[in-house]
Amino acid sequence: MKIIIVGGVAGGMSAATRLRRLDESAEIIVFERGHYVSFANCGLPYFVGGIIRNRDELLLQTPESLEARFGLDVRIDTEVVQIDRQAQTVSVRNMLTDEESVEHYDRLVLAAGASARSGATESTIPTHTLRTVDDVDHISAVLTSAAAASAVVIGGGFIGLEAVENLVHRGVHVTLVQRGPQIFTPLDPEMAAPVLDRLFERGVDVRLNTTVTGGSGNSVELSDGTSVPADLVIDASGVRPDVTLAQQAGLRIGAGGGVWVDGTQATSDPLIFAVGDGVEKTDAVNGSGTLVTMAGLANRHGRSVADSIAGTPEQAAPALGTGILGIFGLTVALVGWNEKRLVATGRAHRIVHTHPANHAGYFPGAEGMSIKLLIDAETDAILGAQIVGGAGVDKRIDVIAVAMAAGLSASALTRLELAYAPQYASAKDPINQLGYVADNLAQGTSVNLQWHELAAARAAGAALVDVRSAGEFAAGSIPGAINLSLDDLRERLVELPRVPLIVHCQVGQRGHTAARILTQRGFDVQNLDGGYRTWLAGTS
Amino acid sequence: MKIIIVGGVAGGMSAATRLRRLDESAEIIVFERGHYVSFANCGLPYFVGGIIRNRDELLLQTPESLEARFGLDVRIDTEVVQIDRQAQTVSVRNMLTDEESVEHYDRLVLAAGASARSGATESTIPTHTLRTVDDVDHISAVLTSAAAASAVVIGGGFIGLEAVENLVHRGVHVTLVQRGPQIFTPLDPEMAAPVLDRLFERGVDVRLNTTVTGGSGNSVELSDGTSVPADLVIDASGVRPDVTLAQQAGLRIGAGGGVWVDGTQATSDPLIFAVGDGVEKTDAVNGSGTLVTMAGLANRHGRSVADSIAGTPEQAAPALGTGILGIFGLTVALVGWNEKRLVATGRAHRIVHTHPANHAGYFPGAEGMSIKLLIDAETDAILGAQIVGGAGVDKRIDVIAVAMAAGLSASALTRLELAYAPQYASAKDPINQLGYVADNLAQGTSVNLQWHELAAARAAGAALVDVRSAGEFAAGSIPGAINLSLDDLRERLVELPRVPLIVHCQVGQRGHTAARILTQRGFDVQNLDGGYRTWLAGTS
Ligand SMILES: Cc1cc2nc3c(=O)[nH]c(=O)nc-3n(C[C@H](O)[C@H](O)[C@H](O)COP(=O)(O)OP(=O)(O)OC[C@H]3O[C@@H](n4cnc5c(N)ncnc54)[C@H](O)[C@@H]3O)c2cc1C
Ligand SMILES: Cc1cc2nc3c(=O)[nH]c(=O)nc-3n(C[C@H](O)[C@H](O)[C@H](O)COP(=O)(O)OP(=O)(O)OC[C@H]3O[C@@H](n4cnc5c(N)ncnc54)[C@H](O)[C@@H]3O)c2cc1C
Ligand SMILES: CC(C)(COP(=O)(O)OP(=O)(O)OC[C@H]1O[C@@H](n2cnc3c(N)ncnc32)[C@H](O)[C@@H]1OP(=O)(O)O)[C@@H](O)C(=O)NCCC(=O)NCCS
Ligand SMILES: CC(C)(COP(=O)(O)OP(=O)(O)OC[C@H]1O[C@@H](n2cnc3c(N)ncnc32)[C@H](O)[C@@H]1OP(=O)(O)O)[C@@H](O)C(=O)NCCC(=O)NCCS
Repeated sequence: MKIIIVGGVAGGMSAATRLRRLDESAEIIVFERGHYVSFANCGLPYFVGGIIRNRDELLLQTPESLEARFGLDVRIDTEVVQIDRQAQTVSVRNMLTDEESVEHYDRLVLAAGASARSGATESTIPTHTLRTVDDVDHISAVLTSAAAASAVVIGGGFIGLEAVENLVHRGVHVTLVQRGPQIFTPLDPEMAAPVLDRLFERGVDVRLNTTVTGGSGNSVELSDGTSVPADLVIDASGVRPDVTLAQQAGLRIGAGGGVWVDGTQATSDPLIFAVGDGVEKTDAVNGSGTLVTMAGLANRHGRSVADSIAGTPEQAAPALGTGILGIFGLTVALVGWNEKRLVATGRAHRIVHTHPANHAGYFPGAEGMSIKLLIDAETDAILGAQIVGGAGVDKRIDVIAVAMAAGLSASALTRLELAYAPQYASAKDPINQLGYVADNLAQGTSVNLQWHELAAARAAGAALVDVRSAGEFAAGSIPGAINLSLDDLRERLVELPRVPLIVHCQVGQRGHTAARILTQRGFDVQNLDGGYRTWLAGTS
Repeated sequence: MKIIIVGGVAGGMSAATRLRRLDESAEIIVFERGHYVSFANCGLPYFVGGIIRNRDELLLQTPESLEARFGLDVRIDTEVVQIDRQAQTVSVRNMLTDEESVEHYDRLVLAAGASARSGATESTIPTHTLRTVDDVDHISAVLTSAAAASAVVIGGGFIGLEAVENLVHRGVHVTLVQRGPQIFTPLDPEMAAPVLDRLFERGVDVRLNTTVTGGSGNSVELSDGTSVPADLVIDASGVRPDVTLAQQAGLRIGAGGGVWVDGTQATSDPLIFAVGDGVEKTDAVNGSGTLVTMAGLANRHGRSVADSIAGTPEQAAPALGTGILGIFGLTVALVGWNEKRLVATGRAHRIVHTHPANHAGYFPGAEGMSIKLLIDAETDAILGAQIVGGAGVDKRIDVIAVAMAAGLSASALTRLELAYAPQYASAKDPINQLGYVADNLAQGTSVNLQWHELAAARAAGAALVDVRSAGEFAAGSIPGAINLSLDDLRERLVELPRVPLIVHCQVGQRGHTAARILTQRGFDVQNLDGGYRTWLAGTS
């Protein structure tokens, strides 16, 4: 059996090594148009920042090491330029010599990844994407030789924000240019607010609703009419599946623009398989085609495509889109759908915001985080989550991702028996607490209201009661709220107006107890979800 | 409705507060024989060590705060001494005045916790358990007033080891006395080995297979005939459910010695409920009664017993026994059953040992960990896991605990979509890698051999092939192994004897590729699970 693999990094090389382990006798050729295979794409920004110091660290394998260990025929600097499905051949071009040749395949694996969408316009300032080893070599050259003092980063997504952090880490002044009104759009706006704050704190000049219109000398022109200094532009406007070959070969392309594959990674041609950033996955929430350009799935599906080819196919699990970002000491993590998307598709949902600490408050060093959980209003299924904070964020997103993958309901989070000692967690872990709140919503034990629903509810006649202490109230409150602290509530009930009430505290927890007291006294009560803190983040 | 709760800490107070939120009109009395309620038991060792500096941090609530917020009638220094089930009354004694009185109940909740099993014998050296605020006051008094220089800790379980760490942190020389041959018996021996190493490194004098036989002056006598200096003895020999009241009232007691309850926390008397360390849970692995003396379940079941009483009962999830311990910078975590228990009950199982890093190796600061996964040989269900290492251990045990709770198979760990960026995880997370190895075993793609099976296999004629590099081999190897490095294997096959082969590398990963090569060349091959590292830990 002769297997040809297009693309020699995450998906492609995972397929190649697993194939070899399954079949010592197969002929396996990997074509990679770049000069490097098996490199750590995800480490590139940190090499730019000087956090990863040794360039060799980025190169996990070489053609030589792959030949020695796995008997792979890895051909770098070689582009596959065409597929002939009838003949079962690919045409390849040696990019150094421009020579073309043809190779026959029994099975073909496309692992061509994604390509950059450009957001930059003509300019004389050095402009680079941040996707390959060559890119970082170019960027590093500009940074060192020109002693670059300032840079513009286009796009506030995963890679854009990693670029920002690493440039700042190198002492470069950064302007972040974002087309839309919010950075890091996988988050909902109130969850992205602390990220924006952090960028400002670290001196990043963030320009929202802005694009780059041109540039010359050391200055980039923006659509808001201003210009900002820049010795370097990093274009991280986003990516799209690289489907050039697949399209030209007439393979089915999904609605989202990625190569269509079935659960065994087979394309519409049963001899051709595809994996990684170039293909569409099946969305775990609604079963539609979806693009998830993450290394975990590329590696995973790379391994399973080998199993498919070797004759033990398995159905891929639907994709959750779990992702994580470190930015200036904040960890930002997410899984599944956000509120924007649920609203856009009209899916009935419940929302929980909490603001727990990563471990027991009585143990020194606890760090805070904010969690948002999105829940199916009919089935109580978990639809998504977002977490922003310090230590322990990565743990909680993984726990939720596993719960989602396993089909646990939001209320079932109460029952998870997570490891507790005071330096690691709380006896009621933040995950259990999310479950408690979700359970109360599911049972109707409490009713909550979102920060963006507050104004309308008050306009319709509801009164807002702040049940925090007088001191907390004085330090900052929602305009027009009545302050009546939780511990005084039972005694001072008579002071409350007999209208629908919205109660709130700092994070939602005391509000919950207040709401229970008031509900049982015959009031119509809603608890402001996430309390003052979420309201502040949402309205900031 | 009048509800009486016996015990005012984790389980009891969680029941009381939730009950209040569900029922504003109930009369709720909490009896606590100690002087403190709602205290952080789990923080006590760290107060001894001076890591938690402020004693008030340990007291999460007071009778006054619980009265103010939850309208609870909390009576400290008051012991419940008898239950009269016919009359639905409890007799209580005020421990300060010795006055007795009787209280009627509609529902009774027993949350009496566990009591210490003593491993100490008569001695004139101050000897304390480490279970209450009073205990730590006494211990602290000895440590400061006597300027104690040395201590003996009896018992190397959770609390014993936490005591050791904290005493060392205060500059005290510690002898740890352990009755059996292994410290921290929830682990299997090869997983406990690095914990023992760490204790030695930190200067702890660990005495295995030893008990305390007496003591006087500043010296404790041990069963091995030696004596060790000690100004203080901490007795952490273990705990047993405190079932005094339940037993005397004729409630059903489980086989393991805890109060028997059904899934709604009802005892054999439908008006009496019980939660926490005093009750038996249902074991998640085999459905038997089991004792899990952990705060998470006490809190959780405390909340659900309130729901049961308020009329919305729910069935408890079976208990996994997830636990975690920090000891001198090592994190030790476990869930489910260990190998010892599987062997003892004759349950057919598979085992996987891995030694991954917590995050991408190319990102600076990666820390190692060792993982052991126990798998049902018939169903591929996860039966348990143990993890020892640095950062990221707590995350992985939680992920496995959720997978177990949700009934995911070991092979399904491959499919989990965990959050990856290089400073948090690997593109193939340690959890996914566990799944890959498990999947290979389930499919028969590879066959592994445990460290403790090696000697017998070699005695039966198998040859051992070390596929690491010559340098690694020279730095330490298993006596009698043939060294033939993986990358040379295909060319030097002829050098191998035609007998059953056991291959091994450092951690098992190269051994896997070697085994695949050899199997396809017609050899009978097993891969030494966990490689040299697990073998070394097991035989050390
Ligand atoms: C800067 C950066 C940071 C990232 N950080 C993270 C992160 O933290 N976490 C995460 O999960 N993911 C991250 N990713 C995404 C992750 O790297 C990708 O999801 C993953 O690499 C996709 O694997 P793939 O095999 O589909 O594509 P790639 O790994 O991109 O490999 C595709 C290869 O195919 C080659 N190729 C394309 N067409 C041809 C052709 N016609 N002929 C020959 N060769 C061809 C390309 O040159 C390329 O090398 C990051 C990506 C980048 C660029
Ligand atoms: C030092 C220490 C460290 C720990 N660390 C951890 C950890 O890191 N992680 C973890 O998960 N768990 C830990 N635990 C265990 C955890 O604290 C218990 O699992 C949990 O507190 C059990 O809750 P409970 O309500 O059953 O019992 P407890 O919290 O012990 O409360 C029982 C209360 O009942 C009272 N009582 C008993 N009988 C009577 C009576 N007849 N009348 C009146 N009052 C009575 C007792 O005085 C006691 O205060 C630790 C325990 C200790 C002691
Ligand atoms: C590294 C790369 C070449 C794949 O190589 P690989 O050998 O398949 O993958 P790994 O090194 O992770 O090893 C996994 C194999 O070791 C096995 N293994 C891992 N730990 C083991 C252990 N302790 N015992 C036994 N086997 C073990 C696994 O089962 C798996 O084998 P299988 O697929 O046959 O089941 C490919 O993933 C790659 O090029 N990666 C770099 C690019 C990239 O991923 N970029 C994005 C992220 S920065
Ligand atoms: C603290 C203690 C008194 C229980 O008090 P509690 O109010 O029931 O518990 P918490 O403070 O954790 O709050 C949980 C409640 O707040 C709610 N909540 C938490 N965060 C919320 C938020 N952001 N929004 C709305 N509600 C929230 C939960 O739903 C839950 O209410 P519910 O039970 O009605 O669903 C009891 O657990 C105790 O005494 N603990 C100390 C002893 C101990 O646990 N020791 C062992 C570990 S050291």
